[in-house]
Amino acid sequence: MFAHNKRLQYTVRVSETNPGLANLMLEQFGGPQGELAAAIRYFTQALGEDDPGRKDLLMDIATEELSHLEVIGTIVAMLNKGAKGRLAEAAEEEAEMYRSITGAGNDSHVTQVLYGGGPPLINSAGVPWSGAYIDTIGDPSADLRSNIAAESRAKIIYERLINLTADPGVKDALGFLMTREVAHQISFEKALYSIQPNFPPGKLPPDPRFARVYFDMSQGEVDLRGPWNSDENFEFVSNRDEQQAVDGGDGSGTVGLSAKEKTVVTALAKRTASETGLDPMTGAELGMGEASQGTAAAPKKRK
Amino acid sequence: MFAHNKRLQYTVRVSETNPGLANLMLEQFGGPQGELAAAIRYFTQALGEDDPGRKDLLMDIATEELSHLEVIGTIVAMLNKGAKGRLAEAAEEEAEMYRSITGAGNDSHVTQVLYGGGPPLINSAGVPWSGAYIDTIGDPSADLRSNIAAESRAKIIYERLINLTADPGVKDALGFLMTREVAHQISFEKALYSIQPNFPPGKLPPDPRFARVYFDMSQGEVDLRGPWNSDENFEFVSNRDEQQAVDGGDGSGTVGLSAKEKTVVTALAKRTASETGLDPMTGAELGMGEASQGTAAAPKKRK
Amino acid sequence: MFAHNKRLQYTVRVSETNPGLANLMLEQFGGPQGELAAAIRYFTQALGEDDPGRKDLLMDIATEELSHLEVIGTIVAMLNKGAKGRLAEAAEEEAEMYRSITGAGNDSHVTQVLYGGGPPLINSAGVPWSGAYIDTIGDPSADLRSNIAAESRAKIIYERLINLTADPGVKDALGFLMTREVAHQISFEKALYSIQPNFPPGKLPPDPRFARVYFDMSQGEVDLRGPWNSDENFEFVSNRDEQQAVDGGDGSGTVGLSAKEKTVVTALAKRTASETGLDPMTGAELGMGEASQGTAAAPKKRK
Amino acid sequence: MFAHNKRLQYTVRVSETNPGLANLMLEQFGGPQGELAAAIRYFTQALGEDDPGRKDLLMDIATEELSHLEVIGTIVAMLNKGAKGRLAEAAEEEAEMYRSITGAGNDSHVTQVLYGGGPPLINSAGVPWSGAYIDTIGDPSADLRSNIAAESRAKIIYERLINLTADPGVKDALGFLMTREVAHQISFEKALYSIQPNFPPGKLPPDPRFARVYFDMSQGEVDLRGPWNSDENFEFVSNRDEQQAVDGGDGSGTVGLSAKEKTVVTALAKRTASETGLDPMTGAELGMGEASQGTAAAPKKRK
Amino acid sequence: MFAHNKRLQYTVRVSETNPGLANLMLEQFGGPQGELAAAIRYFTQALGEDDPGRKDLLMDIATEELSHLEVIGTIVAMLNKGAKGRLAEAAEEEAEMYRSITGAGNDSHVTQVLYGGGPPLINSAGVPWSGAYIDTIGDPSADLRSNIAAESRAKIIYERLINLTADPGVKDALGFLMTREVAHQISFEKALYSIQPNFPPGKLPPDPRFARVYFDMSQGEVDLRGPWNSDENFEFVSNRDEQQAVDGGDGSGTVGLSAKEKTVVTALAKRTASETGLDPMTGAELGMGEASQGTAAAPKKRK
Amino acid sequence: MFAHNKRLQYTVRVSETNPGLANLMLEQFGGPQGELAAAIRYFTQALGEDDPGRKDLLMDIATEELSHLEVIGTIVAMLNKGAKGRLAEAAEEEAEMYRSITGAGNDSHVTQVLYGGGPPLINSAGVPWSGAYIDTIGDPSADLRSNIAAESRAKIIYERLINLTADPGVKDALGFLMTREVAHQISFEKALYSIQPNFPPGKLPPDPRFARVYFDMSQGEVDLRGPWNSDENFEFVSNRDEQQAVDGGDGSGTVGLSAKEKTVVTALAKRTASETGLDPMTGAELGMGEASQGTAAAPKKRK
Repeated sequence: MFAHNKRLQYTVRVSETNPGLANLMLEQFGGPQGELAAAIRYFTQALGEDDPGRKDLLMDIATEELSHLEVIGTIVAMLNKGAKGRLAEAAEEEAEMYRSITGAGNDSHVTQVLYGGGPPLINSAGVPWSGAYIDTIGDPSADLRSNIAAESRAKIIYERLINLTADPGVKDALGFLMTREVAHQISFEKALYSIQPNFPPGKLPPDPRFARVYFDMSQGEVDLRGPWNSDENFEFVSNRDEQQAVDGGDGSGTVGLSAKEKTVVTALAKRTASETGLDPMTGAELGMGEASQGTAAAPKKRK
Repeated sequence: MFAHNKRLQYTVRVSETNPGLANLMLEQFGGPQGELAAAIRYFTQALGEDDPGRKDLLMDIATEELSHLEVIGTIVAMLNKGAKGRLAEAAEEEAEMYRSITGAGNDSHVTQVLYGGGPPLINSAGVPWSGAYIDTIGDPSADLRSNIAAESRAKIIYERLINLTADPGVKDALGFLMTREVAHQISFEKALYSIQPNFPPGKLPPDPRFARVYFDMSQGEVDLRGPWNSDENFEFVSNRDEQQAVDGGDGSGTVGLSAKEKTVVTALAKRTASETGLDPMTGAELGMGEASQGTAAAPKKRK
Repeated sequence: MFAHNKRLQYTVRVSETNPGLANLMLEQFGGPQGELAAAIRYFTQALGEDDPGRKDLLMDIATEELSHLEVIGTIVAMLNKGAKGRLAEAAEEEAEMYRSITGAGNDSHVTQVLYGGGPPLINSAGVPWSGAYIDTIGDPSADLRSNIAAESRAKIIYERLINLTADPGVKDALGFLMTREVAHQISFEKALYSIQPNFPPGKLPPDPRFARVYFDMSQGEVDLRGPWNSDENFEFVSNRDEQQAVDGGDGSGTVGLSAKEKTVVTALAKRTASETGLDPMTGAELGMGEASQGTAAAPKKRK
Repeated sequence: MFAHNKRLQYTVRVSETNPGLANLMLEQFGGPQGELAAAIRYFTQALGEDDPGRKDLLMDIATEELSHLEVIGTIVAMLNKGAKGRLAEAAEEEAEMYRSITGAGNDSHVTQVLYGGGPPLINSAGVPWSGAYIDTIGDPSADLRSNIAAESRAKIIYERLINLTADPGVKDALGFLMTREVAHQISFEKALYSIQPNFPPGKLPPDPRFARVYFDMSQGEVDLRGPWNSDENFEFVSNRDEQQAVDGGDGSGTVGLSAKEKTVVTALAKRTASETGLDPMTGAELGMGEASQGTAAAPKKRK
Repeated sequence: MFAHNKRLQYTVRVSETNPGLANLMLEQFGGPQGELAAAIRYFTQALGEDDPGRKDLLMDIATEELSHLEVIGTIVAMLNKGAKGRLAEAAEEEAEMYRSITGAGNDSHVTQVLYGGGPPLINSAGVPWSGAYIDTIGDPSADLRSNIAAESRAKIIYERLINLTADPGVKDALGFLMTREVAHQISFEKALYSIQPNFPPGKLPPDPRFARVYFDMSQGEVDLRGPWNSDENFEFVSNRDEQQAVDGGDGSGTVGLSAKEKTVVTALAKRTASETGLDPMTGAELGMGEASQGTAAAPKKRK
Repeated sequence: MFAHNKRLQYTVRVSETNPGLANLMLEQFGGPQGELAAAIRYFTQALGEDDPGRKDLLMDIATEELSHLEVIGTIVAMLNKGAKGRLAEAAEEEAEMYRSITGAGNDSHVTQVLYGGGPPLINSAGVPWSGAYIDTIGDPSADLRSNIAAESRAKIIYERLINLTADPGVKDALGFLMTREVAHQISFEKALYSIQPNFPPGKLPPDPRFARVYFDMSQGEVDLRGPWNSDENFEFVSNRDEQQAVDGGDGSGTVGLSAKEKTVVTALAKRTASETGLDPMTGAELGMGEASQGTAAAPKKRK
């Protein structure tokens, strides 16, 4: 069960209102790398987790991320506070209001017109939060790797936001939030490597014929190689013929069909066949204007 | 530039048509952990990458994932081939057709009715593919971690699909695709650790006051601890008071407002205040039926 | 700040696993009328709210809804628990596994194949949760009405789910969750009517010429009238002519254009004009087959 | 059946073109609180409604909202008319065109570049309209409450837009549209309260043990109470212990598992267990740079 | 302005309820090729259209499509009518109700549980309608082609639905709706070819060097050629070298950077460079289990 | 199988960085009419296609569109290159950085803050790419028409972008991409008309009673007619009565119900009936303020 205390996990002191900055901050409120995504990610994993240690870890961090959502949401609310009510109270003449609403140069007009200055569950482009941001699949070694990656992404977004504002209170609170992503990443790394073995993930072993092959699919000029495709670690396959039909087959796709299925498939194919021997007049030629009306004259060719 | 060869990277031999199985396979065609998501993820990273080795690595794997998308798409197409054309050619009487379309017990009816038996860009629930599946943020140490996690997720989904079918040709091709995710994960791991240091990600250092603190946010019964929150690695904070306002402030959110802003905020607050001293009649009471019409009689309380 | 206690707000006792039922329960976990939508709705309103009483109310209920999300998520997790691991551990032979995954007759295959049996943030159709479910606009009298409506919708969905299961433990927990929606609706009604006046919402008065007019837009047969369009309450306008251009103008749309704008608009119109005096041959006629090739013969007309 | 008359329901007179203002107006064309959402909401309810009076009411208002969609869409089209064709006709030199396209400071560039100056079905952030905006659930007392709330939201958005423009023709038409939302709200209120009883919604009674309890979930400092949680109306529960497991159980989640299910669950748990007794080296430590390579030295702690 | 008449454009006579069939019919109600998409497509084009003939045509057909939306929605409502109320009234015991809700084998459970048996704005997979279905771009020759294509798609979906049901009343009404798509396609074709020239669309001429070149990008085995790439119509380029950098350049991407920009780009590149000369230990190796702990031993290679 | 060559299909030479222009270019990278949509559209059609000529054509063009995606993505990357790293390296003081991030006047802030300057899979409004953009339905004559329309739309968007930039290298590369859309449209037209007959699409004939009728649904003032609704081509039906219930029935919707179904439907109707004879007090009246508290006094009426 959740309980709430009216004190924030970190005090938020904003110097002055700035709806444009508020709009950028929304990335960590309702954006793909933001705190709601983090909280929900860990909370849903916790519910489905049976390992008692990991379940506890996930719920601890989910709860902290909810508290961070409150901190970043409070920053957004404070940055918008001066603007809030301007439209509601008709505090200025219209042209002035229009200028202030559209003058920030980003999507802050959406916060004002659609959301009345409150913190909406959108990112800085105005896109509503989506469950598609959550990549949990219910396997602990995969999900912990997803969590590690998610924490590292969130750390970077906070770093960018910190570099964008000189307001000391905002900078300070963002610094706390950024730091906690680092701490969480350490915890998730420890939890991942406490599962042994955790690589390859899952239970089915890879096919030994293909697990240490590197296909050099992008060619041209010189290839700069590294440990990710070095001869120490991989068989490096550059020959285009050896990249195709690597099972030794003919590289085609086939399926067994029943007699009845064949009949239908054949009927469909026949009815919808494109004849290759004709050069039919087409809508494009009809559309080329009067001169070419009724003719299929070939346009000028290259050279 | 891309070029295409008509031979698949792996030969696809499907024993018999099975639209229901095809529907499940769509997870790796148009689903969040599928091959399009993988190909696009690495391709867009490659375009934005300046490090020549990583750029090459990303384009190599992006190109291979496109080739995998072709393999899994061919599996889907083969599994649907016998069903394709049934609706188009009206090959059976209607009741029989209705039964076969809805009888698979999953979302294969969507493939038949909306997509005509072709491989659609949806997952097994019929949800269209979304760019929101891509979590690239343009920082190499974060993106490589995202790639590592994505490969481990894709490996698991393939493992589940393999466990769902006894068709030897499908099993074989899925085994190849699963194995390649393992190989790609190894490459991305090598690329990540070739960046030194890569932790913490980014350039800004974490705040040392909070980088090694673990907040025990979920409490009750016994806490099972591990290296992810052990005393060796973290300062473990269980006291609820020490979890709040950890900066030493009062845990509130504040902002400086101009005189003009204060006026508007005050006017708005006054106009929309909820009076606490009244017990107004409400719509709920109006809706309780004749007996309570016009009264605000409190319903029965607990105890 | 949020804190978490390992005890649920309501004990969940599920008799036996049932992934199909779990899939239906997802409506209240990751569906539009579910607990996450409720929690986020009130939480974001609380952050933007300045009235101290309402802010407290909103945060109280937001926190309780998060606790309900945990309860319904635990029901989902328990109903899936027996199925979880089946694909991961390859516990049965493939054909049996395929049957059990697709046999529930709804979208539970998505939970198994994509989410590994954990509680995903989707509804019973497999659609990911969306921020578009949240209709908060930052005006208290409108938002409280939205909350009242949301509580009444959630009450109904719970009622439907209760009618779908005979498992006494599930029924009991759903009964609690359903009841709390009723209690929350009462609170939101009290908060709305504590704002006086709250109708019409907002500050701008309606135009008295149109505030009490009812346009009878759908006609035919007999109109059954009620207090929603009675003469006591409305001027009832049935005459089609009086429904148009009710401002007394000509019902057209016009705009003032600069000379430069007129030039461009005219050039565009001229270049893209459809000539009405011709009967051009079209792609449709080209596609009617050899017989009609080159002719624009009109098809048979009705009667 | 629908019929269309070329005269608008309200004459639209726009003084001069303004693509930036047009972009804001899109909120009521293709936005969540806009006229399409309203029309579709009532239209789909009407189709599913059996009560003859309500069915008529819903279709009347649905039809009027379609007519309003035409009015607001005409406003958008007029505001864009001067800009339309500029890109198509290449009417200015490129740098001038670029400046005018991006200079409005909001998302009007999307209307110009993607939609050619026509009125697109997006909101002011460029987000496509979504069926997720419609919250109809097929219960009349819930749906009527949703309609009441929707009308009150739409009224507010119109009010904000009115406060943003000084163009008398735009202001006038918006005033009409705003007023009609008020009239519709009155009708929906009358229809709701004509159902008696309508509270609680649905048929199943709430559990009397929990229907009049208020859980004080957010605590700290002073709680400002009102009729929404007063002793007259509710039992106010502040004790944290009394907020948990309110059914009197232990607050856990349990499920009965068959022997076979237990076997699988146990196997999965064992294979994926996180060992708590180790302090494994992790990727984070590998990434800390050469100095810490191969060690798991704990970073500096707080204090 | 729109007006509504209570008579449908086509009488709907359904023999008996069938929620499973209703679910399939949703494709043409709330699906991508359905009647709402059609109505909105033409309505928004009409609003932005200045050519008086086309504007009238578009509004005529938009209005008819709205009337078709009413017809298909009425079919859905009738097919669900017997099931509606079952959950609301608790008309059967729970197990029976569960069976009937999930037994249709498609997504009809969503209509029952979430939408209460009313016609929801979703497709047959339960995916909410999206503005992304509308591909209008505000150029008449492109939009008319989009309309022609849309009508042909809708015709096909109706044909599939007709082949799925033996109910004579449903078949009859679907036949009418299907036929009208054919009629509309004819009209849109006439309107397109009344613009002369309409090909190439737009105003800018294509580059004559590349307008009649066909790049043979997919090679292998035999290429079956037709008029779409014949020598009469195209220069056929198979040589891979001639497909690259066709402008005669080096096929690279370059940009001019200021000195300051170069400094930043260089700093970023240096900080995040992947060293190619090392073979670092990685997380994958840490995860391979105790045996390989601390070593980077290469796994077995192919052959 | 796909292969990649490091040389682009067209050389990209950008004069100087311009993140604002980059944002507009995203329309053809991750927008609905962009190159990914094109590539995926043809690729998925190719996989499901059995006609060997069309299959080859579709894969040829799909592969070329992927190569175009690389070209436009490279343009985006180059235009952003100077800005990339600015946030990561904290290259300027915060206020300057904030100004440059938000100063472009469109959504380029999203590229910088969320995507780190890399090319994201979004359109110029920041909306993630969606599978809903793909309208393939698996019927060749419909899909080829969709492809023709898609090529004509893409041609237009490129034309608009060309008109927006004076950078000769960007203009040149966009000119190539635009031209190729023209060439592809010609090929798809040839493929469509090689299927004879291809109109009406599909197999079921239209109902001759309704195939050549034009319903004049939008009336008022003068109707400007053209070949799309001329007497030569259509029976023109203006009489409103003849537009309704065109089957000769009563225009109602009916369904056969079993006795049991009737019982439930009746019970539901009775329980939820709106009484028409009352004028109940409503929430609106409660909300009008003290003066009207407890009364249902009708507001002032018009005139």
